Amino acid sequence: MDLKDYVASIPGFPKEGIIFRDVTPMLQNAEAFKESVKQISDFAKDLNIDVVAGPEARGFLFGCPVAIELGAGFVPVRKPGKLPREVVSKSYDLEYGSNEIQMHKDAIKKGDRVLVVDDLLATGGTVEAAIDLIEEMGGIVAGVAFVIELKDLKAADRLKAKGYNVCSLLSY
Amino acid sequence: MDLKDYVASIPGFPKEGIIFRDVTPMLQNAEAFKESVKQISDFAKDLNIDVVAGPEARGFLFGCPVAIELGAGFVPVRKPGKLPREVVSKSYDLEYGSNEIQMHKDAIKKGDRVLVVDDLLATGGTVEAAIDLIEEMGGIVAGVAFVIELKDLKAADRLKAKGYNVCSLLSY
Repeated sequence: MDLKDYVASIPGFPKEGIIFRDVTPMLQNAEAFKESVKQISDFAKDLNIDVVAGPEARGFLFGCPVAIELGAGFVPVRKPGKLPREVVSKSYDLEYGSNEIQMHKDAIKKGDRVLVVDDLLATGGTVEAAIDLIEEMGGIVAGVAFVIELKDLKAADRLKAKGYNVCSLLSY
Repeated sequence: MDLKDYVASIPGFPKEGIIFRDVTPMLQNAEAFKESVKQISDFAKDLNIDVVAGPEARGFLFGCPVAIELGAGFVPVRKPGKLPREVVSKSYDLEYGSNEIQMHKDAIKKGDRVLVVDDLLATGGTVEAAIDLIEEMGGIVAGVAFVIELKDLKAADRLKAKGYNVCSLLSY
């Protein structure tokens, strides 16, 4: 099975000049969804993962079944105002403006081995902010996994240069 | 294991007068997360589910691992503007104003047996709009499952009166 057969490429979404890589066909197909979860879980199975962290909302799609497969907990990384208990926050710059993510302050315990999962690695801003929060809480980022990597943006190279163990199932 | 031990109750979130039932402690705990996914999957295992549909964003948290467990596909029910391909939309009334949800037009095939999964059943507006969309696309809503039901709002009674097979793991 070639998982690329289950990615739809949409030129001009959400704005002109961008080709959106849409994973919903992969989710919709039971075999392809299972295979994608298996491949990420296989990458992580010897990393002794305690917790999977996934950014809202598409990181939940793959991160949650991977957490169940690994016997780990799941921690959502959310936009501001969504988490009801005490949070830690991190802002990061975008081309225009900035974004902020939050995690519950008790989400990661000191020494937890964490796998960060998202559907797509583009510039890496969100995932790097999540890594910062996880490490500030005392967690160890044992792996970072994506279904899709946009390789021209070189974010995986940057993460690897910092010493992270990075997996992407597909690259464009 | 009592799953209620893994729900945090937050008075006044997101606004005064509401007690928010927070499932993040259940996700964070590997055993509790696995148990919640198992209980929903057990409810659905004889329903011949082809597709699990879950509303953004917390419906993804439980719906995706349940889909993997059942060997089904997963279809996201999203807020407007998030899905890149051709969509069907449904608006529904809130106490003040209205909300709209969207699904991809090819998300459900005629005759698909669909399980709708969300973390919490309150007034039922979102899930009823999702059911309408699924049925308009020719799907059969074979089950509707929630981790938490707010029973004073009686949405489960209304769904059952319409003939739906409803499961909620916990009620408040």
